[in-house]
Amino acid sequence: MFQQDFTKPDGRKLTLYGLQPLEVTSEIPSPSNEPVDARPVMRWHPLRGEWVMYAAHRLGRTFLPPPEYNPLAPTSDPEHPTELPRGNYDLAVFDNRFPSLKLTAPEPEGDLSRAGVGACEVVVFSQSAAGRLSDLSDEQVSLLLSVWADRTTRLTASGVIKSVLCFENRGVEVGVTLHHPHGQIYAYDHIPPVQARMLEMTAKHQAETGRPWLTDFVQAEREAALRVLRDDGEALSVVPPFARYTYETWILPARPVSLLSELTDSERLAFARVFKDALLRLDALFGVRMPYLMTVHQAPVNTESSGFPLHIELYPYLRAAGRMKYLAGTEQGAGEFANDKFPEVAAQELRAVQNLEAKL
Amino acid sequence: MFQQDFTKPDGRKLTLYGLQPLEVTSEIPSPSNEPVDARPVMRWHPLRGEWVMYAAHRLGRTFLPPPEYNPLAPTSDPEHPTELPRGNYDLAVFDNRFPSLKLTAPEPEGDLSRAGVGACEVVVFSQSAAGRLSDLSDEQVSLLLSVWADRTTRLTASGVIKSVLCFENRGVEVGVTLHHPHGQIYAYDHIPPVQARMLEMTAKHQAETGRPWLTDFVQAEREAALRVLRDDGEALSVVPPFARYTYETWILPARPVSLLSELTDSERLAFARVFKDALLRLDALFGVRMPYLMTVHQAPVNTESSGFPLHIELYPYLRAAGRMKYLAGTEQGAGEFANDKFPEVAAQELRAVQNLEAKL
Repeated sequence: MFQQDFTKPDGRKLTLYGLQPLEVTSEIPSPSNEPVDARPVMRWHPLRGEWVMYAAHRLGRTFLPPPEYNPLAPTSDPEHPTELPRGNYDLAVFDNRFPSLKLTAPEPEGDLSRAGVGACEVVVFSQSAAGRLSDLSDEQVSLLLSVWADRTTRLTASGVIKSVLCFENRGVEVGVTLHHPHGQIYAYDHIPPVQARMLEMTAKHQAETGRPWLTDFVQAEREAALRVLRDDGEALSVVPPFARYTYETWILPARPVSLLSELTDSERLAFARVFKDALLRLDALFGVRMPYLMTVHQAPVNTESSGFPLHIELYPYLRAAGRMKYLAGTEQGAGEFANDKFPEVAAQELRAVQNLEAKL
Repeated sequence: MFQQDFTKPDGRKLTLYGLQPLEVTSEIPSPSNEPVDARPVMRWHPLRGEWVMYAAHRLGRTFLPPPEYNPLAPTSDPEHPTELPRGNYDLAVFDNRFPSLKLTAPEPEGDLSRAGVGACEVVVFSQSAAGRLSDLSDEQVSLLLSVWADRTTRLTASGVIKSVLCFENRGVEVGVTLHHPHGQIYAYDHIPPVQARMLEMTAKHQAETGRPWLTDFVQAEREAALRVLRDDGEALSVVPPFARYTYETWILPARPVSLLSELTDSERLAFARVFKDALLRLDALFGVRMPYLMTVHQAPVNTESSGFPLHIELYPYLRAAGRMKYLAGTEQGAGEFANDKFPEVAAQELRAVQNLEAKL
């Protein structure tokens, strides 16, 4: 992996990544040279016991710009600078111009709020605006896994970060404001509720059985052979038996590791192949680009977190052709999901999908 | 409050409620006389530590029927029976024909699942298909509060229910399949994650301070006088300082009670007035019927739960005119919300709203 760091005119950081040596053939741009005055704060929700982030400067963020202006494409007209330069590179990561969290967030006045310490980064998957993550080659998807690992390592090195969440939200149905294939990274200065719960549950499993949760899960799914979509030996995809979304799909390494950086080159490539295969299946299922949320779950950092299972969770938002799943009363009011289809049936449908390579 | 129980041709229960003596002038109908073979189950999510409900029979449920067929309106043509009879009544409650939970759910085979024990009811707010909850009179909204209290008491009496969630999901934007004003009730045979967390947090507050959480919260909001929308003495509405949705609004009694059934007649009417006022403000804010989720939080039942604060949470899905809030990476992947606007600003906008009575 090749990489190079830059600073944008407005002070934000940019890193370019490539499978080949990098070459940059234009200035390093920013849509505006004016630094964003981001002062994110957090407040404590006393009944849910979780932090809420407030970022008033985000209201002005880019919202479905016209096709002639794509801030995630390389700058073609220096009069209308984007976030990225021209040159030879595969992926790019830069500080979000409208961050919900910031490493240098100032301490606010008053006793309701605290500084919104953390980081928000944008990860551009490709120079091509029209493609999908699944249109990348296996090697490029593997590079993305390396990039997520590198960002996690860098954010961990700040010393103040406790948890790093890499994710992709895809589809206008779920609020995506820019169609260029990209994801985001949120890094928290504390362990958020979902990660805290996973850590608690898997530590309990390890204490009770002496085995990592992931080892037992992978073995059980291989034995049941009902919900596995693809098994490449070193990595596999599965509709978990407790899927909350109808076509929810998890990508797991076969060996229990906690961070992407722990994967060997061979494991990472297998993980990339299985991941790409799962994305293609979801699109081919109904012949449309499946709207989804994809989250990469890694162990909390700068803290004791052994036994946490590295995995990717894909939440496809269609529960049937043309029918969205919405989070309503029971999901939001009680924290429990209702699912119309058994995971075994959903897995069978996803395994039976044809024409994985159709362009959508 | 007047009420009367009936049994539908397919065996489901129906209760009619009214402010005046009831009169039923047609047969008690059901869209089909065929009992639905509902066998809901639950499975345990080992990483999130929560139950997931599976209800395969729900896939065939009613989805945006044409206007000429409204299953929640009184039956006008006996050839096309709906869920409700003709007659004089204000509200109706019946067993959901497509339940995610059922009191008599059979024990499933295999060791992955357990019976989906609980209840799912439909609450029809009015005989009029076109109105809103906020188009009801104060007395009718107060009747709805009494009906929710009655359902909670009845479900509690089953002995197997631990938590009752009354809610309304409104707007096609959030998956509503029937436009006739109605809500739902989910009753669980365990304490779901959100209620468990609220119970834990408020019990801790009570143990540390000797005071109910609600007492301190109401006092602090009255003193701050920044986020209260309307204060009727016995009940008030407020954008909480830790709002997760931009225009999130809570309705609270001024006296700390745990269940709707504990409200006095006067408190219930004040609560209804403030509740209706909040709903009207949300619609008037952008001059559209605000899509929202409304959840009624009551203490767990059949279990120790002192100090739990009865309140209603309104989650409006518009974060600005024409702009929906979506739950994306941080909300779903980490369990933490990002909000673009400070609650103090949102409260100011909601207080300044004019034309509350405009028909929308």
